Amino acid sequence: MHNIKIVLIQTFHPGNIGAAARAMKNMGLSNLVLVNPVDFPSDEATSRAGQATDVLENATVVSSLEEAVQDCQLVIGTSARDRTITLPALTSQQCGEKLVAEQQSGKVAVIFGRERMGLHNSDLKQCHFQLNIDANPEYPVLNISQAIQIVCYEVFKAGQKQYEPQIEAYPLNDDLNRFYDHLESSLTGSGFIKPSHPGQAIEHLRALFKRARPTSKELQILRGMLSSFDKE
Amino acid sequence: MHNIKIVLIQTFHPGNIGAAARAMKNMGLSNLVLVNPVDFPSDEATSRAGQATDVLENATVVSSLEEAVQDCQLVIGTSARDRTITLPALTSQQCGEKLVAEQQSGKVAVIFGRERMGLHNSDLKQCHFQLNIDANPEYPVLNISQAIQIVCYEVFKAGQKQYEPQIEAYPLNDDLNRFYDHLESSLTGSGFIKPSHPGQAIEHLRALFKRARPTSKELQILRGMLSSFDKE
Repeated sequence: MHNIKIVLIQTFHPGNIGAAARAMKNMGLSNLVLVNPVDFPSDEATSRAGQATDVLENATVVSSLEEAVQDCQLVIGTSARDRTITLPALTSQQCGEKLVAEQQSGKVAVIFGRERMGLHNSDLKQCHFQLNIDANPEYPVLNISQAIQIVCYEVFKAGQKQYEPQIEAYPLNDDLNRFYDHLESSLTGSGFIKPSHPGQAIEHLRALFKRARPTSKELQILRGMLSSFDKE
Repeated sequence: MHNIKIVLIQTFHPGNIGAAARAMKNMGLSNLVLVNPVDFPSDEATSRAGQATDVLENATVVSSLEEAVQDCQLVIGTSARDRTITLPALTSQQCGEKLVAEQQSGKVAVIFGRERMGLHNSDLKQCHFQLNIDANPEYPVLNISQAIQIVCYEVFKAGQKQYEPQIEAYPLNDDLNRFYDHLESSLTGSGFIKPSHPGQAIEHLRALFKRARPTSKELQILRGMLSSFDKE
């Protein structure tokens, strides 16, 4: 399961990093990625990690979310809140099943946001799906290490089942970002997007394509389509 | 769900009591029972409870497990270890389903043991079932508040029977077909599709957009995008 990355953005309390490492190891996961942690390494993290200090020691520290997920074919963002432009939503169980199914063919990631702020809209741009953890609507905000525990638990449960091998090839996040850039530049070239009043069209198109989740072959066709328009 | 009691025995770290209260409230539970807590009430518990201080304030403190569960018709003990005297075993999911089913007719309880010792055999004598949380056999010992989170999460899942009403407006099939015709004509105009060798590109794009299932608003954007390319 080393292809499954648990990504934490700007974690404030080092205890939460330690608790996350323990929650991961309890469920058989080991690949922890920290984006700009406020205090790491720290004694508090080590103490809360229990016997999962190996997960902490092997954690990768990076300076941007983009860097954390650039080699991933599937990126799922965890969010307690509704957004104006939503991604396709998964339950925790669906999230676990999807991660386990797809880690057979490449790297996959689940992202957890800052303790008080969650994920920003700019973080969600890197994501293909949004995970909404089932919770009490009157107080749906879980401690980050508890949210990680639930996701890792669902991964463990899903790992005990058998899955059909995945046959479709999916592009890396990097390739998708290049496609979105290309789309924006083509639409600017055609006059559909006016740099002075860009509006929300590109965001809506992004949401649509994320939902469709193009295969590598389909992305190639989409790039070809844009190039044919560019040449006019 | 007030008929479902979460019972903690001799909890050592007050932070774990606070985290348990939050985990409970996040999943819609409120009935916390503490058997001989080492340090309670405490600032640390209150701080870790987040917005679940009401669960702490209403917690019942008792001096024996027997007292804690005397009015319960179902008592489930959580254990990471095998015992010489084993009870019928439940998974977390079965535990959640059983608690939800039986709380309709009376009080039910799940018991969590001491941080380092778990449940004693004398505690298990009060139980009807044993819960074994699915976990990595190399490190199956979860932090107590994380174990509580998983159980409460499964209770919440078991209690959910409602589905969100659909709010998005979707286009008629007729409108979709007009979009596909428009797409084909734009791509023919741009030279991407050659009438003499049309190939499969349009079929692949159709499959992609069907999968995405554009909303009415998104379809309008897609039509606008094509029109902008047509004008070039």
